[in-house]
Amino acid sequence: MSENISPFAPDEFPTLPPLRGFTMATAEAGVKYRARTDLWVLRCDPGTQVAGVFTQNRCPGAPVDWSRKALRATSGGPRLVVVNSGTANVFSGQAGRDAVLETARGAAHAFGGSPDTVQIASTGVIGVALKAEKLVAQFSDMADRLAPDGWAAAARAIMTTDTFAKGTTQTAMIGDTRVTLNGIAKGSGMIAPDMATMLAYIATDAAIDAATLQSLLAEFTGPTFNSVTVDSDTSTSDTLLLLASGAAGNSDDDLTDFRRALHAVMFELSQQIVRDGEGISKLITIKVSGAVSDTSAHVIAKSVANSPLVKTAVAGEDANWGRIVMAVGKAGEPAERDALSIHIGPHLLATKGQPDPNYHEEMGATYMKQREIEFHIDLGLGDGAATVYASDLTHAYIDINADYRS
Amino acid sequence: MSENISPFAPDEFPTLPPLRGFTMATAEAGVKYRARTDLWVLRCDPGTQVAGVFTQNRCPGAPVDWSRKALRATSGGPRLVVVNSGTANVFSGQAGRDAVLETARGAAHAFGGSPDTVQIASTGVIGVALKAEKLVAQFSDMADRLAPDGWAAAARAIMTTDTFAKGTTQTAMIGDTRVTLNGIAKGSGMIAPDMATMLAYIATDAAIDAATLQSLLAEFTGPTFNSVTVDSDTSTSDTLLLLASGAAGNSDDDLTDFRRALHAVMFELSQQIVRDGEGISKLITIKVSGAVSDTSAHVIAKSVANSPLVKTAVAGEDANWGRIVMAVGKAGEPAERDALSIHIGPHLLATKGQPDPNYHEEMGATYMKQREIEFHIDLGLGDGAATVYASDLTHAYIDINADYRS
Repeated sequence: MSENISPFAPDEFPTLPPLRGFTMATAEAGVKYRARTDLWVLRCDPGTQVAGVFTQNRCPGAPVDWSRKALRATSGGPRLVVVNSGTANVFSGQAGRDAVLETARGAAHAFGGSPDTVQIASTGVIGVALKAEKLVAQFSDMADRLAPDGWAAAARAIMTTDTFAKGTTQTAMIGDTRVTLNGIAKGSGMIAPDMATMLAYIATDAAIDAATLQSLLAEFTGPTFNSVTVDSDTSTSDTLLLLASGAAGNSDDDLTDFRRALHAVMFELSQQIVRDGEGISKLITIKVSGAVSDTSAHVIAKSVANSPLVKTAVAGEDANWGRIVMAVGKAGEPAERDALSIHIGPHLLATKGQPDPNYHEEMGATYMKQREIEFHIDLGLGDGAATVYASDLTHAYIDINADYRS
Repeated sequence: MSENISPFAPDEFPTLPPLRGFTMATAEAGVKYRARTDLWVLRCDPGTQVAGVFTQNRCPGAPVDWSRKALRATSGGPRLVVVNSGTANVFSGQAGRDAVLETARGAAHAFGGSPDTVQIASTGVIGVALKAEKLVAQFSDMADRLAPDGWAAAARAIMTTDTFAKGTTQTAMIGDTRVTLNGIAKGSGMIAPDMATMLAYIATDAAIDAATLQSLLAEFTGPTFNSVTVDSDTSTSDTLLLLASGAAGNSDDDLTDFRRALHAVMFELSQQIVRDGEGISKLITIKVSGAVSDTSAHVIAKSVANSPLVKTAVAGEDANWGRIVMAVGKAGEPAERDALSIHIGPHLLATKGQPDPNYHEEMGATYMKQREIEFHIDLGLGDGAATVYASDLTHAYIDINADYRS
């Protein structure tokens, strides 16, 4: 864990209210960390609908393999979510698979439900098998302490290199029924989610079927979790779950306001992740317009967002738009040097293949001192647009990652 | 320019002999740097055959646009190569195009030949138009000083953030005729060449036609310049030229030994570039075997080579093979976690989806203290193989790039 708190850390964790249909507990299982919680169990009442997306990394962890299957499994009992920090249980072979099974069985035994439906996630160092007995040893006591409150504690228990706990809440109306959505997440490094983020859990008391939940996740993941990047590295453990207990008892199926609220929760959690990007000193917003398609715009924005030379220039408060041109050009997407224009904040820097005559270096130098930097790149080719959010690349990133395991 | 010399810098620049058919000069044109040379002109005797590859970046500089055309142009006179450091003359609009034309005309006037056949390259900051008059002002004096010697001076004149001048030489037999190849290059940052490197010039006195030269370049660029990476950023100015004066007068067309020598020159220059990677403390060799194809192996090796988390782990002397698994998995190429094996140097770290039982952390810890680190990743799927060379990611990289322009 880093000693330096992100400059974007909120003053305090928001108040996430208890949600009907969900109880939880955290514990100090001692997986790796000492003197802090590292285990969270969420118990979802019978009937809870679930949707999820997982990492597209070709070498996922045993928990991801298990949880993909668990998503489709059903039973009459409660559904459980078990998350530990300290080890990712990735590339841990048969021992890792055994640990997942043992965890699922232990959890179902203590909290009810079927092992097959237990959602398991582990986050931390790769290549070390989880010692499931450390988790299982806590379950009985945790079962006695299950409570509807505890979202802030949960957000803390799942942190690894995060410098602040991440959570948000929204309410929405479905017909005449007020429903609530709570979300927590963790993530700070190895962040370039691909169809999912590190770990994010969103729970609601709304009554919405699993298929609808899944399609909502698919729709909103692109512009939220898949539009932030810290270091271009895609985790082997990315997991995003959406759980709906149905306890609110809504019957109307007009999800207009719920969609707004869900998007807001997903956007806010993804923002908190990038704003806690390892070593971040400045947040970079890259808006691309005028591309031949939205997908093309997204690829170009990601190319700029992941360029080490762009990220170090921002860290150095250098309005080095030449590196932006380079990163646009290397993306491999349609781009024409002489049709391109680039704004940094309100300033038009470059247009028609050359620096704008009204731009002076002092404008950029002053603007770059801000903590939040926005680049707007217009390609002048079509209607495609995308926005990506990134952290900069600083000495602190190297400090964190050159000795993460030690 | 960096004050810290790469730990991989050679003790001295090799001795590159004069080559029949080529003369050259350098000068202090004062484009940006002070008290150092920043301009090189190479004059190639009439009849010299030329081949070249250029950046695949979609936003190339005006000199690249010009030089692509110049490659196909011919005249009865000498062919000229003009290279300056200090500004890249990229994204410099009409002023940049005018500067290229003015440079070509001025060079042809002073050194002979047609402006259309002048090869021009500029390297340095993007977004600033070259002041051609600064180059042209030097040409008359340089024409008086043209000499067959001067390769070391040329290699120094084209440096930007390089910490050492790069050059190599080979001889080869074509039939009974001994021919010589000299190569110089520059490059240190913005290095992930795509069909070319930063700037590299290879000259030979052999008599070989342009079409053959071009096919040799195409064949050898993949395993040499395209297999090194510093920061995954592809320059807008990458240029690789191969010039053959024919002065050796060889008639035999058995190029077996010439091919060996050319490959050796290209490999050595590409090695010198990655070994001068900005901020390098360790050289990383990534060998991938067992992939479904050579191309797939290359993509996977590049994914590992460009992963900030792998590069920082190496800088921190951490044998963090979990990050290698992650980088293999995120490449998007066929890979099976449980078929994968990973060696670090002589040590088998991981196999069949888990750490090898005979591996102990101390083995990796000791090995990682070396200056040259080798990862061997076997995918266990097919016969595809590739090797990529990379620098690590250090504080010095950030120091160099957070304030390059100031």
